[in-house]
Amino acid sequence: MTFSFHHHLRSGDWVINEVAKVIQKKKLKNIHIAPSSIFESYTELVPCIENGNITSIHTSYMNGPVSIAVQKGLLKGELVMQTHGGRARSIESGEIHIDVAFLATPTVDKLGNGYGATGESACGVLGYAVSDLEYADIVILVTDHLVDALDHIQLSKDYVDAVIVVDKIGNPEGIVSGTTKITRDPIGLKIAKDTSVLLDKLGLIKNGFSMQTGAGGTSLAVVDYVRAIMKKRNIKGRFASGGITSYYVKMLEEGLFENLYDVQCFDLDAVKSVDRNQNHIAISASKYGNPYEDLPICEQLDFVILGATEIDLDFNVNVTTDSFGRIIGGSGGHSDIAHGAFCTVIVSQLIKSRLPIIKEELQTISTPGENVDVFVCERGIAVNPLRKDLIDQLNRKKVPIFTMKELLEEAHWVTGVPKKLPKNTKRIGVVEYRDGTIIDSLYQVESHV
Amino acid sequence: MTFSFHHHLRSGDWVINEVAKVIQKKKLKNIHIAPSSIFESYTELVPCIENGNITSIHTSYMNGPVSIAVQKGLLKGELVMQTHGGRARSIESGEIHIDVAFLATPTVDKLGNGYGATGESACGVLGYAVSDLEYADIVILVTDHLVDALDHIQLSKDYVDAVIVVDKIGNPEGIVSGTTKITRDPIGLKIAKDTSVLLDKLGLIKNGFSMQTGAGGTSLAVVDYVRAIMKKRNIKGRFASGGITSYYVKMLEEGLFENLYDVQCFDLDAVKSVDRNQNHIAISASKYGNPYEDLPICEQLDFVILGATEIDLDFNVNVTTDSFGRIIGGSGGHSDIAHGAFCTVIVSQLIKSRLPIIKEELQTISTPGENVDVFVCERGIAVNPLRKDLIDQLNRKKVPIFTMKELLEEAHWVTGVPKKLPKNTKRIGVVEYRDGTIIDSLYQVESHV
Repeated sequence: MTFSFHHHLRSGDWVINEVAKVIQKKKLKNIHIAPSSIFESYTELVPCIENGNITSIHTSYMNGPVSIAVQKGLLKGELVMQTHGGRARSIESGEIHIDVAFLATPTVDKLGNGYGATGESACGVLGYAVSDLEYADIVILVTDHLVDALDHIQLSKDYVDAVIVVDKIGNPEGIVSGTTKITRDPIGLKIAKDTSVLLDKLGLIKNGFSMQTGAGGTSLAVVDYVRAIMKKRNIKGRFASGGITSYYVKMLEEGLFENLYDVQCFDLDAVKSVDRNQNHIAISASKYGNPYEDLPICEQLDFVILGATEIDLDFNVNVTTDSFGRIIGGSGGHSDIAHGAFCTVIVSQLIKSRLPIIKEELQTISTPGENVDVFVCERGIAVNPLRKDLIDQLNRKKVPIFTMKELLEEAHWVTGVPKKLPKNTKRIGVVEYRDGTIIDSLYQVESHV
Repeated sequence: MTFSFHHHLRSGDWVINEVAKVIQKKKLKNIHIAPSSIFESYTELVPCIENGNITSIHTSYMNGPVSIAVQKGLLKGELVMQTHGGRARSIESGEIHIDVAFLATPTVDKLGNGYGATGESACGVLGYAVSDLEYADIVILVTDHLVDALDHIQLSKDYVDAVIVVDKIGNPEGIVSGTTKITRDPIGLKIAKDTSVLLDKLGLIKNGFSMQTGAGGTSLAVVDYVRAIMKKRNIKGRFASGGITSYYVKMLEEGLFENLYDVQCFDLDAVKSVDRNQNHIAISASKYGNPYEDLPICEQLDFVILGATEIDLDFNVNVTTDSFGRIIGGSGGHSDIAHGAFCTVIVSQLIKSRLPIIKEELQTISTPGENVDVFVCERGIAVNPLRKDLIDQLNRKKVPIFTMKELLEEAHWVTGVPKKLPKNTKRIGVVEYRDGTIIDSLYQVESHV
């Protein structure tokens, strides 16, 4: 059977662990799970993997003990790393058939409707649960907050088979991320400042524009610089999307954006805002990034600011593994919005932990280079040669452009040329692009360094 | 077959007339229609009735030429006058089976989702269309405004079979009512003032209270007096419901109410507000007043202010026919909220057009007296003897109370005793209480006076 879960309670989720305990107790075998992400606290999955209760996994992001177990080769079947939009596509197209969806739901009414933005375990939007809700054979809402009636509904009773009321569905402290603060690092701030100038020179900050950024410190600094430009020139954007943080809530409430399109809330301000603001709009993973969806939000984006663990000379980006090939994340929405946006900018320090971020060969390709347009680091800006339009525009504005090779040589001048690690060879999983194409493999890492 | 329609475009609706023309052209016979209301502009129904194309009608409110045609006895079958909540009950319980619902929808997206508060024919909420949407065999949205995608959805694509795009679904000038102004008549203002004092003496204006009023000039004056009390004493209500007008929008935006529960918008400010305000919540007719619904809004009301065309000594109220028995309205939500509210107050001038509003015998019972608690007119207040609790409370506060008989005698002293009209005898229809009970009959009126 296939069981599915969403990850909106993030590190605070107790539902997936409770179900995993039952899987162990009932000695179920060869279960396939399809959680939208796996966080470090989902530890009860580890014995399930070790004992062959769970033998294959589809997910879009993964770290912590489950990553380590899978990396060791303990999963009997295969791991498929999807994108958020690709996961919705695969469920809605029938490629993944979910037998039972266990959906942690912060508030449920007596009719079985669900809502995410109220209750003690409020997490805001439940965007990654919608495909599961609509397509799973059996849908179970698990809640710790049952109310008579809901004013706003995110999960419709029409699809719900059962509601389970428990004492607690999670730990509120783990649910909302505490990491969403603007960087104070001067290099991060310089990169952010340069990025905002670049976006402005490209004419992308104008009335009616749309943007998305990650929740990292440098990305948030870009948001702050963009905000300053908008206020100075009295610019109103059409929307920001994501992964919404308090920074975007502030901009919505200042009237700088018409709408926020929110597939998951990153902090408590966002959770409160989606309950309060009519124009803070909860969207599903399909609406966000399903390639089979008609004009999903990701395809309406003017620019996006994203991170990387590695980037190569062809602008291919790795956000799935570290320099040793160890799984420390996954695409999430990275590939979806990189594909959809008119201009995709990767921001990073050129050198991290004494290693250049630019590689001649990546450990893993998460997002193909053809979806990536610009790389900004503290030493300069590189533009994908495929984007002659952007290069022409920046040349006219006398913005200096480097090649990736030049930036790589600059990095090597500081760090030396890192020695090549022997490539791992025993395949443990694959990276699936948003449209279902397998674009890379994941390998067993013998000693977990 | 049964065709259904909603009346949210009010006098501006063109969809029902267009469908009626097709019924005539196709010479359909013995059609049953179930529009939520019938306005004076729905003139194309008249030849359908005359020619036997349409032979029976369920509706909740009716006036104009269609009323006259039915009153003459031209409808071959029967007219059933329902309440708004009763209509939802009868559709959802299967008592009325709708073959085709033609739902005028101001905005429709490419997937077939519908929304009422945007587009040239915006009417705000589409609450009376929801039962039809969910239970009709075939659901057709008729729109003049097709968009790529909707941020907010009132009618879910899941239930829609077809979308028809036309040039215009209606005339915006007829859609929103122009009558929602506070009365300037000194007698109306006195009644309103007395009513607000009464409500206050009954302790009903307190933190967390809820209320509903009609959109008549006197009712709106009551709202204004209640608002003044709330502001003075810093009171915040839980909700106002209805038929929402600009007065309630103002109070929501002033923070005087937590929520508005809106089943239909009465004016343009309400239409704009439902699109703008998160806490201006669109509800269905079932959520509003379906007696089979678990805790509908009407049952959560502390007090309601309603009108009457006639009231008798037992507090039975007529809002369906005039003094001659001619159909000039119908219950709409009158019976639903009168039943649900803790305290139901009827406000009216004692004497209208030289006739006392209090009668010994009503032409038609729309709302049973057991649902009506207080009658306020310019000469005084009467309280239903069933409500000993209210009477005791008012006695303690030294509020003078009259009996209905005393008020009737007062009226007769001014107008004389009106001569009794001969009772009409040929039955043309019935009045159905919200739970399906037939509580009165409607009769042919020979000469339309």
